[in-house]
Amino acid sequence: MAVYTDLSDEELDGLLARYDVGRPIAFKGIAEGVENSNFLLETERGRFILTVYEKRVARADLPFFMGVMETLAEAGLPCPRPIHARDGSVIQTVRETKPCALISFLQGVSAKRPNAAQCRAAGAALAQMHAALRDSPLSRPNALGRDAWTGLFAGREAAAEALEPGLAAAIAGDLADLAALPPDLPRGVIHEDLFPDNVLFLGDAVTGLIDFYFACTDALAYDLAVMLNAWCFEANHREFDLVKGRALIAGYESVRALEPAERAALPLLARGAALRFFLTRLIDWDATPEGALVRKKDPRDYAARLAFHRRAGSIAAYGG
Amino acid sequence: MAVYTDLSDEELDGLLARYDVGRPIAFKGIAEGVENSNFLLETERGRFILTVYEKRVARADLPFFMGVMETLAEAGLPCPRPIHARDGSVIQTVRETKPCALISFLQGVSAKRPNAAQCRAAGAALAQMHAALRDSPLSRPNALGRDAWTGLFAGREAAAEALEPGLAAAIAGDLADLAALPPDLPRGVIHEDLFPDNVLFLGDAVTGLIDFYFACTDALAYDLAVMLNAWCFEANHREFDLVKGRALIAGYESVRALEPAERAALPLLARGAALRFFLTRLIDWDATPEGALVRKKDPRDYAARLAFHRRAGSIAAYGG
Repeated sequence: MAVYTDLSDEELDGLLARYDVGRPIAFKGIAEGVENSNFLLETERGRFILTVYEKRVARADLPFFMGVMETLAEAGLPCPRPIHARDGSVIQTVRETKPCALISFLQGVSAKRPNAAQCRAAGAALAQMHAALRDSPLSRPNALGRDAWTGLFAGREAAAEALEPGLAAAIAGDLADLAALPPDLPRGVIHEDLFPDNVLFLGDAVTGLIDFYFACTDALAYDLAVMLNAWCFEANHREFDLVKGRALIAGYESVRALEPAERAALPLLARGAALRFFLTRLIDWDATPEGALVRKKDPRDYAARLAFHRRAGSIAAYGG
Repeated sequence: MAVYTDLSDEELDGLLARYDVGRPIAFKGIAEGVENSNFLLETERGRFILTVYEKRVARADLPFFMGVMETLAEAGLPCPRPIHARDGSVIQTVRETKPCALISFLQGVSAKRPNAAQCRAAGAALAQMHAALRDSPLSRPNALGRDAWTGLFAGREAAAEALEPGLAAAIAGDLADLAALPPDLPRGVIHEDLFPDNVLFLGDAVTGLIDFYFACTDALAYDLAVMLNAWCFEANHREFDLVKGRALIAGYESVRALEPAERAALPLLARGAALRFFLTRLIDWDATPEGALVRKKDPRDYAARLAFHRRAGSIAAYGG
């Protein structure tokens, strides 16, 4: 976590002159997101997050991300609302070439180990998000979706094997099995990364869904599968907490009932989601220098989840 | 800039239970200070900064830093106020062994290139700080003060020479000349690091003096000399802005008049202050790995200031 771009008060004043938000009262770089520079900004008119996009977020994708947030905020979901500049746009530029955006600040604290009530509330929020985006024309391919997994693993067999003997073969087996994922599950805009870090709570109530920079078009139930991985495992990464899984799925279905095909595909979707995070962590694991200030996330946490998913016979294994 | 300690909501709840500040409403790691982990915390009762002290701040010095802040806040200066826990203490522990403290949040934005009015206001705030601490029993030796400079430079002659041919000999000359610094200037608790980063403004009014973790006992006028270096040079680091220098000194003297001995010593104090920052930057410059997320500060910026101070004949060179 780091601030890569450090804006001066002069740069801030120049930027804010393009908005109707009044003068700055407080401005602090915040350690949120590893890929962008984020600032908490308070002005005479309210509190905001200013994000300066660094290289890993493609400029061409920003209108999609802003559109998703705006659609959700308009629908009444607790999502950051993009603030329009005086010229109507939601993407501005600082330091000559760096795109940036101002979004509304949301209260709440993320839960490190969410309880069942929080799982239920977050599941419902996910389904509300899916419902609010159902008729949206917004779309973006999932660069880390099923079509990408084989390519992400290519050449990393030895790295996987170094983590755990036998893992390379097991992953190859996963990739083979995942070819059976049905191609025609209900699709729409998904968050794709709704980890506990990205949900804010006050008590057990959801007050914020944040960080839409992996959002894309994919199977809706895949988003739920990501959450089953991220929200419902014990700290040992091996055991699934059925109480939390039941709460998450029930929360989701309180808003949008899963179709039979989605229920049937859930174990494979959960395995695919675990594989996606295993693979991206494996890549980052090798790429992150020792001593870097970014916290390295251990791919083995997701290898352990994969072992669970391989044994899961049906949605019942997840509390569905 | 980085967050080294990432507190979970459970750790935060455990910590806040020891205070009478209500429940958390928002909690974000902020990119402030390179040596500690800082969090912006909003609770039902207000906004605070939570600092977790990492290794470079000595546990034994914390009562001094907290005492300085509390003294200044009590005197009505815009300084963070240490929040007392229910047991009366101002230093708590998280993650078993890490000391931490909760202080009040201050509004305002620091000025990258302060204008003359801001220099005047900051100078006055410095003198108010000196006055408020005049009768304080708090004291702490200056580990980076005049007695340390020769030792800090020892063995780094080649590193200085690599930056700029002739620099090693020039620094040796500075060290020799600085032996003439009078030992009996008025002393007290000084900030020692009141760079523009550490002063918050709303418009031209000072709303915050922050980051007291270099505070120590030393010559009061040395603190002003630090500010002349940090606030009044042009962006080229070579030219002194007499208008800003005049404003800074006049602001200071609007609260506390400099004594004749302090006025006479000012060029040498300014040279000593520039040397102190040159030396610590030189050390950090060599110690910071390429590609680290911490912004490296170029020691040459202070070598250029040193060249100015060597030519300064009297306080008039600074606008005094």
